[in-house]
Amino acid sequence: METQFNELKQRLAEVSDLNAIMSILGWDQEVMMPRAGTAGRAEQRATLSRVIHEKFTSPAVGQLLETLRPYEESQPYDSDAASLIRVTRGDYDKECRIPADLRAEMTRSASQAYGAWVEARQKADFALFAPHLEQQLALKRHYIACFPPAANPYDVLLDDFERGMTTAEVSAVFAALKADLVPLIRAISARGDAVSADCLHGYFPAAQQQAFCLEMLEPLGFSAASWRLDPTVHPFSTGAGILDRRITTRYHEDYVGAALFGALHECGHGLYEFGVSPTLERTPLCRGASYAMHESQSRLWENLVGRSRTF
Amino acid sequence: METQFNELKQRLAEVSDLNAIMSILGWDQEVMMPRAGTAGRAEQRATLSRVIHEKFTSPAVGQLLETLRPYEESQPYDSDAASLIRVTRGDYDKECRIPADLRAEMTRSASQAYGAWVEARQKADFALFAPHLEQQLALKRHYIACFPPAANPYDVLLDDFERGMTTAEVSAVFAALKADLVPLIRAISARGDAVSADCLHGYFPAAQQQAFCLEMLEPLGFSAASWRLDPTVHPFSTGAGILDRRITTRYHEDYVGAALFGALHECGHGLYEFGVSPTLERTPLCRGASYAMHESQSRLWENLVGRSRTF
Repeated sequence: METQFNELKQRLAEVSDLNAIMSILGWDQEVMMPRAGTAGRAEQRATLSRVIHEKFTSPAVGQLLETLRPYEESQPYDSDAASLIRVTRGDYDKECRIPADLRAEMTRSASQAYGAWVEARQKADFALFAPHLEQQLALKRHYIACFPPAANPYDVLLDDFERGMTTAEVSAVFAALKADLVPLIRAISARGDAVSADCLHGYFPAAQQQAFCLEMLEPLGFSAASWRLDPTVHPFSTGAGILDRRITTRYHEDYVGAALFGALHECGHGLYEFGVSPTLERTPLCRGASYAMHESQSRLWENLVGRSRTF
Repeated sequence: METQFNELKQRLAEVSDLNAIMSILGWDQEVMMPRAGTAGRAEQRATLSRVIHEKFTSPAVGQLLETLRPYEESQPYDSDAASLIRVTRGDYDKECRIPADLRAEMTRSASQAYGAWVEARQKADFALFAPHLEQQLALKRHYIACFPPAANPYDVLLDDFERGMTTAEVSAVFAALKADLVPLIRAISARGDAVSADCLHGYFPAAQQQAFCLEMLEPLGFSAASWRLDPTVHPFSTGAGILDRRITTRYHEDYVGAALFGALHECGHGLYEFGVSPTLERTPLCRGASYAMHESQSRLWENLVGRSRTF
């Protein structure tokens, strides 16, 4: 079995490399690329997504997953080996349902839409973005139609973020939280002795905000050897591997809170992936266990640490 | 024939997209990437070079080139159609000689070597780079051995820069130039009334040098919509398409000449590719006709324009 397991890992390492490249192309588009590059970048990302789809859904991968079933069952459920095979099988079964053309078109369309969204936002003109949004929705409906009917069509999309979770379950969680949180927030607001946030407002030049953010991030684990912090339109965290983390924030010169809490939040996402074991590099396990887990890490650093009195 | 020609163009468009992505990965490594990302980036570039090699050397491409031979011969030699097929056939015949493993190893090794070179240069410690240089040479010898023996082994490598040119021809050109240029330069130096370059020396902060370079580049055709200028260790020009040009320079704070003439030189390379017809985008014709032609354009802007009295 060791030969087959190594062959699977080799194939997944290549797919993982190509996914890392896709992340860098996205980062570059949102942070560095001259805006006239949008049309070309959309084609480049579409072509790469097609290559990734073809490599990952290759019948050889499916055969390896079948061959390795007894090996997977012989290993402890939480072992790296069993988890690698199980997670890959889940990804593989889903990806095989999606035609390569749809995957490429979803990528192309999203990349074009990003360029239009930036322009629409700058000009405060929704009409520039509306046709792109409509296309995104149409493609999502095509995507949903690739899967067996679910209780709620959104269940199919939610599964990409939280494997196995349904819209009904999320709604129940949110309903329970709302029942207590809404009165609590009202009660706090009514007390009128809220902490003043005045010190966050004033005039703060972008370059100085960046220096300040870097100073706040360094005690958390951010270092120039493995990280970048850059400005963008809407902050996000990405990277090309455990040791290549890219986080972004934005600078409003009259309010330092957006940059600071944005940077702390994205650093939280980055730290979660920076903390993955190097033995999982270039495997499908080299990512967050779920998006909720990911978001819990970003909010831990943004809110529990970043808004604490001691910090 | 139109169906086959369009199929060839579609395949070449995908290869072109992947080559554009490779350029961005190189730019990112030399300009943006945190240094701890080197090992991962070397694997990513190796994987991508293997994919490009596999896509381009696919037997389907060879069959299309054979099928299209009569069509190529029916078109004028300098037409886009005949040129596309001819240039692709030349590239294809060469690339098919190279094993995918060698192509991937050359890419991986060069990417690792770049990281080592930057460190060795910074520490002025050649020993850090020496083993990488030896590996580069060994791989070049493997590459040369993939081709029929040439009068000079370097002929094989030169062909990648100037198709069909030999080391003997270049040596003859240089010998003829040297015969007149060396005495000419001696005679000028001996006159002792050289133009003073004192104004280029002084204290010039990097940020102000960058602003100055941008001001000098804009009249040439550089614009933020399609171009970037960034600092790097050794300046170069690259891009991800006609409308996405990336040039680089470096700032010595006691001498503005390096940044200025470097930026003008790289802008010349960029302008050459920026001037390619949009109808050639995503084809193998969307590049310089030769490296000598490319260098002539960079030197035109650096020297004939940049060092002219009027500029």
